Amino acid sequence: MDLQALAPAYIRSIDPYVPGKPVAELAREIGLAESDIVKLASNENPLGLPPKARAALESAVAGLVRYPDGNGYDLKAAIAAKFGVGTDSIVLGNGSGDLLALVARAFLAPGDSAVFSEYAFAGYPLAVQMAGARSIEVKARDYGHDLDAMLAAIEPSTRLVFVANPNNPTGTLIKPGELLEFLEAVPPNVLVLLDEAYVEFLPPESKFDSVGQLAAFPNLIVSRTFSKAYGLAGLRVGFGLMHPSVADLVNRVRAPFNVNSLAQAAACAALDDDEFIARTIKLNQEGMKAITDALARLDLPYIRSWANFVTFHVGDAKLLNEHLLENGVIVRPLASYRMPNSLRVSIGLPHENARFIEVLDAALD
Amino acid sequence: MDLQALAPAYIRSIDPYVPGKPVAELAREIGLAESDIVKLASNENPLGLPPKARAALESAVAGLVRYPDGNGYDLKAAIAAKFGVGTDSIVLGNGSGDLLALVARAFLAPGDSAVFSEYAFAGYPLAVQMAGARSIEVKARDYGHDLDAMLAAIEPSTRLVFVANPNNPTGTLIKPGELLEFLEAVPPNVLVLLDEAYVEFLPPESKFDSVGQLAAFPNLIVSRTFSKAYGLAGLRVGFGLMHPSVADLVNRVRAPFNVNSLAQAAACAALDDDEFIARTIKLNQEGMKAITDALARLDLPYIRSWANFVTFHVGDAKLLNEHLLENGVIVRPLASYRMPNSLRVSIGLPHENARFIEVLDAALD
Repeated sequence: MDLQALAPAYIRSIDPYVPGKPVAELAREIGLAESDIVKLASNENPLGLPPKARAALESAVAGLVRYPDGNGYDLKAAIAAKFGVGTDSIVLGNGSGDLLALVARAFLAPGDSAVFSEYAFAGYPLAVQMAGARSIEVKARDYGHDLDAMLAAIEPSTRLVFVANPNNPTGTLIKPGELLEFLEAVPPNVLVLLDEAYVEFLPPESKFDSVGQLAAFPNLIVSRTFSKAYGLAGLRVGFGLMHPSVADLVNRVRAPFNVNSLAQAAACAALDDDEFIARTIKLNQEGMKAITDALARLDLPYIRSWANFVTFHVGDAKLLNEHLLENGVIVRPLASYRMPNSLRVSIGLPHENARFIEVLDAALD
Repeated sequence: MDLQALAPAYIRSIDPYVPGKPVAELAREIGLAESDIVKLASNENPLGLPPKARAALESAVAGLVRYPDGNGYDLKAAIAAKFGVGTDSIVLGNGSGDLLALVARAFLAPGDSAVFSEYAFAGYPLAVQMAGARSIEVKARDYGHDLDAMLAAIEPSTRLVFVANPNNPTGTLIKPGELLEFLEAVPPNVLVLLDEAYVEFLPPESKFDSVGQLAAFPNLIVSRTFSKAYGLAGLRVGFGLMHPSVADLVNRVRAPFNVNSLAQAAACAALDDDEFIARTIKLNQEGMKAITDALARLDLPYIRSWANFVTFHVGDAKLLNEHLLENGVIVRPLASYRMPNSLRVSIGLPHENARFIEVLDAALD
C-alpha cells in the first residue's frame, strides 16, 4: 500500500524549503563548539533581542500555561497605532512566511495562478504549489523584479502577484515611483502581496509609502516581519496589512493560535524600541561596507544590496561553501535559487564579519 | 469590486473557530481586574508550567534572535527516545491543531471526504473545509464516537477519519479493545488520525497502546499536544507519530519554522518532568470530584469525563454563561457544537473550582 499515493499529485511533488543550517547542526557535524561557529546564513539580527522585548518576555512567561489571545488584541492595537490603520486591516502570522501561505490558501485553488519573479523568495512557489495552483515565474532583470514583464505575465487565471522589496536573496530594490505605476496597472481583481521583510534597512528616501497606499489600492497586501531588523526570528511573528474584507477572509484560514503568547508580548515591546532599530541600521551599514570592500578587494562580483545580506558570485560556490563550513562559518548557498555560482552572506557583528572575510581570504589563496 | 469573490467558495463559507474567551478580554469588557477572573474554559493546566520547562525557557531566550531549528533535532530526539519510535516517524506542529490541519492539507483535496463524529473537536470540520474537501459527520452515541456507524460512513472518496480519545468537548472514552477492532476494520487506504490530546489524564488500564500499534497499522496517525497536561498552551507545540512515508509527506506541507525555539526547548524539558505530570493528574482527579459532586448536588446532569474538563447540561446555558461571566468565571458554552443547553468547565485549582461552584450555586438559587 503506497500511502503517499493517497495525496493529491501537487502535494506529492513538493520539495520542502531548505532553511539555513542551524549552528547546532554544524557543531554536531564537524565537532566544533557552538561558540566557535559564525552563522551568517539567515539574515537574522546580530544584535540579539531588542532590550524592551527581552524584558517583556520575562514578564510573559507566567502566562504561558494559557492559550494565546487568538485575536492578538494588544499586538494589533500596537500595530494599528504605529501604522495608522484599523485593527480590522491586520492579520497576524507565525512569521511573515505564514502570512503569505495564508493569503495563498485563502485565494488560490487548483486552476488559479500566481505571478512572482525569478530569484524571489522560495516561499512563494511553495505556497502556490501547496494550494494546488500554478506558478508563473517571470525572468528577472539584473537579479531584480522586471515589473513590466510581470504585468504582462498576468493571465485571466491569476489571482495573486508576489513582489519582494527589497528582494531576498538578491537584495535588489524597486524605486518607489515604479512600484506605484505597477500598482496602478495591475487589474483590481488581482491581489498584490508586497513583501517588505527587509524594509527597515532602507534609507528614508528609498522607502515606498506602502501603508499609505492601502486606501488607494484595496487589492494591496503589505507584509512585514519581526524576524529580521526586530530580532525575533525564534519567536515567529509577522503581520499583513490589507483591506478589511481581505483581512476577514485571510483570518478565516488562519489557525486560531498561530502566534504564540511570547511572540505577541515581545513584538509589542519591540515595535516601541526605536533606539534598537537605529543601532541595528547603523551596524548593518558598517558591516555591509566591511564585507563589500573585502569582496571588491578579492575581485568577487556582488549584487548591490539594500537589505542586511549580500549575494556574491564565485567560481565554485559549492566548494567554497564547504570550506567555509569546515571553518565554522555558515552562509547560504543559492543553488536552490538556480544561482549555483553564488553565496549569500548575512551582515553580522564586526568580529563575525571579520571572521568570514578571514576564512574567505584563506580559501581564495 | 468584491475582493472576497476572488476566493474559492469553500473558503468564503468558512466560519472561523471561536476560542475560549481570554481573561484580558473579559477584564476589558466587565471592568474586573484580571486577578479577579477565573478561567475554566480551555482545558489548560491550572498548575502552570512544568518547573523543568520554565528553567529551559530562561536559558533559551538568548537564542531567540536565530530562526528555530526547522528540523526540531533535539525535540524529535527526546520524543523518539520517550516513545520508542524513529525520528522519521515524527511531525512537529504549532500545537496539535496545526498537526491535524497539516494532515488534512497533505491528503485532502476537492472531491475527497473525511469522517468524524458529531460533538468531536471543532478543528476537524474546519481543517476539512479549508482543504476544499467534504465532511461526513456521524451521529454520536451517548455523546461519544459510534465507531460502527463511522466505519459504515466511509465512502470511496474518504481519505481520512478523525477519532478523538478522550473526546473534546464531551470527555467520552473509547475502550482499548473497541479501538483496536476499529483499526482492523478500516480499509488500509484510509488514514486514521487518533487525537490523544487528553491521553495523559487516563488511568493506565484505560489507555490504548496507540504508539505500539503504529507498526501494525501504517495508516494510523497518533497526535499529541503539550497544551493540556504539559501546561505549554501559550507556546504552541504538538506532534504526530506516523509511518515514515506519511510523515515525509506531511512534513512537506509543514511551514519550516512552524514550532518556535522556546516551544522546542520547553517541550524537551517538559517531556522529562514526570513529577509534574503526576501532580497534574492528582489535582485533576480531586478537582473533578469536587465539581461533579457539586453538579450532582445541584441536580445538573453531566457527561462522565475522562479528561480535564466536564460538560454539564442546564436549562438555559446562554443565560447561565452570562451570569458566570459577569461574576468573573469563564467556562465554554457549547452552542457551536450544537449543544445549546450545555456548558463545559475545565478543572482548575481548588480555589478556582470553589469559586465556580459558588457562582453556580448563587445563579441557580
